[in-house]
Amino acid sequence: MDTDSRPDAGGGVVAAVDIGGTKIAAALVDEAGTLFARTQRPTPATAGGETVLRTVLDLLDELAASPRWPGVRAVGVGSAGPVDTARGTVSPVNIPGWRDFPLVERISAHLAPARGRVVLAGDGIAIAAAEHRFGAARPYDNALCMVVSTGVGGGLILGGALHTGRTGNAGHIGHITVDLDGEPCPCGSRGCLEQLASGTAIARHALRSGWQPSSQDASAVAVAASARAGDPIALAAYDRAGRALAAGIAATATLVELDAVVIGGGVAQVGELLLGPLRRHLTTYAALPFAADLKIHRAHLGTDAGLVGAAAVAALT
Amino acid sequence: MDTDSRPDAGGGVVAAVDIGGTKIAAALVDEAGTLFARTQRPTPATAGGETVLRTVLDLLDELAASPRWPGVRAVGVGSAGPVDTARGTVSPVNIPGWRDFPLVERISAHLAPARGRVVLAGDGIAIAAAEHRFGAARPYDNALCMVVSTGVGGGLILGGALHTGRTGNAGHIGHITVDLDGEPCPCGSRGCLEQLASGTAIARHALRSGWQPSSQDASAVAVAASARAGDPIALAAYDRAGRALAAGIAATATLVELDAVVIGGGVAQVGELLLGPLRRHLTTYAALPFAADLKIHRAHLGTDAGLVGAAAVAALT
Repeated sequence: MDTDSRPDAGGGVVAAVDIGGTKIAAALVDEAGTLFARTQRPTPATAGGETVLRTVLDLLDELAASPRWPGVRAVGVGSAGPVDTARGTVSPVNIPGWRDFPLVERISAHLAPARGRVVLAGDGIAIAAAEHRFGAARPYDNALCMVVSTGVGGGLILGGALHTGRTGNAGHIGHITVDLDGEPCPCGSRGCLEQLASGTAIARHALRSGWQPSSQDASAVAVAASARAGDPIALAAYDRAGRALAAGIAATATLVELDAVVIGGGVAQVGELLLGPLRRHLTTYAALPFAADLKIHRAHLGTDAGLVGAAAVAALT
Repeated sequence: MDTDSRPDAGGGVVAAVDIGGTKIAAALVDEAGTLFARTQRPTPATAGGETVLRTVLDLLDELAASPRWPGVRAVGVGSAGPVDTARGTVSPVNIPGWRDFPLVERISAHLAPARGRVVLAGDGIAIAAAEHRFGAARPYDNALCMVVSTGVGGGLILGGALHTGRTGNAGHIGHITVDLDGEPCPCGSRGCLEQLASGTAIARHALRSGWQPSSQDASAVAVAASARAGDPIALAAYDRAGRALAAGIAATATLVELDAVVIGGGVAQVGELLLGPLRRHLTTYAALPFAADLKIHRAHLGTDAGLVGAAAVAALT
């Protein structure tokens, strides 16, 4: 068994960074998807772009102290989107200090050339890579891997390979319109799936419909607790989210043909409370025969899926 | 210049068949997409499956009388969907006599082996192949080619190649839900793009909103004439269709990343009356930067796109 204290045995590892609006995590990842020297810091999301970069570089410097560091053959960076993998830049919605920020160039400049290429991927694509290589999407050549949490994101596997799109943003299922006349979304569009199915949306809808939280906690987790206790408003809020997810998933299957959908993220952890309505409504929205037999799985990888996936993308490139 | 009377010079041609709910067409098609010996018959859509097949085989027998027939190296069949290209079967919604009908096997059995493989494609995929090889999608590696007429269909080019999906049905954009609570669609789902943007939908919506046709003709073409004369209800019907198309196109671009959209079909022939609202509403629905710069083109190929495309798919396979 490998441990963090054993120097690199020659198999090679990837240095992975996962950049989100709340935290930035980093680790060394081997070919089996095992993490070493994992470390993380809060994202200084409201600070200037250089401060955010400093956090990333500090985390990489921490990794460099690992005895496995000399075995690093590539650097994989997964980032909240949008990204532009063709240009190596990132513009994460929740990190305003980074707009068209040349992240690949800046990380490359910080590291010795021997550490290999810096490969950028959107966070949805990274998670899809992780689930396809090590998780619930492994048996499938055509899969949508989704995260349902504060937001809704995703990535596509088509014909056995990651479908990244030209700029690395394919799979942005949270921002497809499922309700033409729906509410405006911060992205600029309206009726986006995220506005109907994210944790934020579930809690907002429940409160608007008259749900009474039993404590200070008015989150989607608290709505779930009420739903489990039989509260009809809370149940309806999850049903509505499941219905919107069904419409968005069915649209994706109808457009590209899918074998399976893998769903992870904090909200999806409520399990059948969300997945039950989702499966039920899929029988309506995924009506055409070729879209009708979709398998729905819960994600196998947890909060480290982004790191494992960033490493997998870098190893594939 | 080639003409129909000149025997095959050795370059090879493809025998193409295009099967729709109204007509079945057939032709020999050379590598430049030029049609020879084109022929067609009305689809006996309400007849039994064997009668429909007989029409297809009769058309192929007509082609066999052409001096170019000995040069046929493959047979391309484009069919209204759904199809199952993996099994070689078709189940066109508007041809009830064909359900899981083994079209590839039956055509193969009718022809001499020297005529080569029989290759099946959905009609949307065939049109995408035609526009990508010879038409408006030629400059693009990532494009959605659509038909807006009695129905709404499409096909995808991703990474420079046709994206058919495992059973050949990818690109079915007419049956993605853009209105979660929308009207039921004959496909079994609800709020499908086709229910909002087809010619049938435009005419229905105009009539329901109080539009007064000036003649017996209450079709989308008549609605267009009223709109051009300034009728606000008719204009609103086209605006609504353009808005639904914008939401569906934006969803596709957000999911897979597109460079361009090519739109053909009878309803699209009204031009800016539909494309104007479509472009305007795209600025709302295609909000994320990577989806925002979509080029919208009118299709270059006309009613023979299905034949040209069926031949192109067979030649590629």
